[in-house]
Amino acid sequence: MKIAAVQMNCRFNEPERNRRRAIQLLERTRADLYVLPELFNSGYWFSGREEAQAAAEPVPEGETCRVLIAAAKRLRCHLVAGLAEKAGDRLFNASVLIGPGGFIACYRKIHLFDEEKKWFDPGDKPFAVHDIGVAKLGLMICFDWIFPESMRSLALQGSQIICHSANLVLPYCQAAMVTRCLENGVFAVTANRVGQDRRGGQSLSFTGRSQITDPRGRIAARASKLMEEVLVQDIDPGRADDKWLNPANHLLNDRRPALYQS
Amino acid sequence: MKIAAVQMNCRFNEPERNRRRAIQLLERTRADLYVLPELFNSGYWFSGREEAQAAAEPVPEGETCRVLIAAAKRLRCHLVAGLAEKAGDRLFNASVLIGPGGFIACYRKIHLFDEEKKWFDPGDKPFAVHDIGVAKLGLMICFDWIFPESMRSLALQGSQIICHSANLVLPYCQAAMVTRCLENGVFAVTANRVGQDRRGGQSLSFTGRSQITDPRGRIAARASKLMEEVLVQDIDPGRADDKWLNPANHLLNDRRPALYQS
Repeated sequence: MKIAAVQMNCRFNEPERNRRRAIQLLERTRADLYVLPELFNSGYWFSGREEAQAAAEPVPEGETCRVLIAAAKRLRCHLVAGLAEKAGDRLFNASVLIGPGGFIACYRKIHLFDEEKKWFDPGDKPFAVHDIGVAKLGLMICFDWIFPESMRSLALQGSQIICHSANLVLPYCQAAMVTRCLENGVFAVTANRVGQDRRGGQSLSFTGRSQITDPRGRIAARASKLMEEVLVQDIDPGRADDKWLNPANHLLNDRRPALYQS
Repeated sequence: MKIAAVQMNCRFNEPERNRRRAIQLLERTRADLYVLPELFNSGYWFSGREEAQAAAEPVPEGETCRVLIAAAKRLRCHLVAGLAEKAGDRLFNASVLIGPGGFIACYRKIHLFDEEKKWFDPGDKPFAVHDIGVAKLGLMICFDWIFPESMRSLALQGSQIICHSANLVLPYCQAAMVTRCLENGVFAVTANRVGQDRRGGQSLSFTGRSQITDPRGRIAARASKLMEEVLVQDIDPGRADDKWLNPANHLLNDRRPALYQS
């Protein structure tokens, strides 16, 4: 199975252009599963909730889902992509999972980062696993990485590949994903943005270095800091079912929940 | 407050020599808290439970605790050190916390690594925090690092400094401690061994590179791979009470336990 991280430079508030660019990048390299960045269609740095609301779409009825559903059908692939979700009066920083047969699931970011708390409502549904036949996928978004409970929750439910749409601005995540994948015995596809969003005279830079990490914590592929590119890796998702670090230690069954504080 | 990792080369089954060597190293560099390696008095690679039993001592009545209690009193310091604990018929891979006033606490390793499962009983008491006045300490041993629940449990209880006695043989822990300290906002002192234990014609090498890591995931100090040395760092333990990563995100309060699987 070929899994891909689509590292792209989104233009703020240019959804049509960003969708077109994403599809161009997808078509460049054949894969079975593509992960796109967080808020790939709208850009990230909203001035406030109103601007986020204006960029948000209903899921799966909105234009971005429509375009992604058509692409997944045409390319016979699965896609995970981040976008702002409008749900009545509520707004979520979400990612959608779409397959050749259409819309599958939506994940609403559980741990909002910094100013996002002004723009979005926090995710209201538990972490969940999605079986797409060839693999079991878990979705999380960007800052979810800093809470070990995120990937632990996904691994305990049987996720083999963590689809991690991101707009990273801090320098820590890529190294942390080595530990996260090792401690949970899973693959992760961290699809990050490059470029900047601007607001007033200021700019916010995204750090690139999208990464595919394997269940033993090896960095299978890493993108550059600045360029758009599609990272592809050929993997066996079943490797994530082997949680034995050695003949005596099982990464999940050796946990001792009765002795933990949570 | 000065905290220290004592990286030493223990000789298998030479407890008197190892205690003497440890005290020599302590005396070399003044600190308020010293962390010694796992099983520092006995060495690590037992041939079986019988050999571990022969090396084990009651806590705090045994000779190793007696020597450490005397040293802590004389040097007016706190010590954390790993040793095999005999408790009736049970055997634990333990670490003791000792202060100028004597014995304070014993931690029994919760997550046994590999062959240790043949030699020891798994720890039977929860992770706990120990307030020594100048700081709040949490104890864990070696392989506990791979389970994020270990340091999370200690951080949720208010630990400021994680005292991490280790005999590391895998290459992952030192980098992982960067993520662990960052995600929990705590200091950690990982005190590792150098050298080898031998059994039959085989040898088991310990990886050195003891490390003091700060609450923002910075490596404050790191030892060499091969040499005995005492790493010392002057810190303010109160820095571990600030769990605000930025004005909007609190590392512990932003957790969403209702949405996790555990």
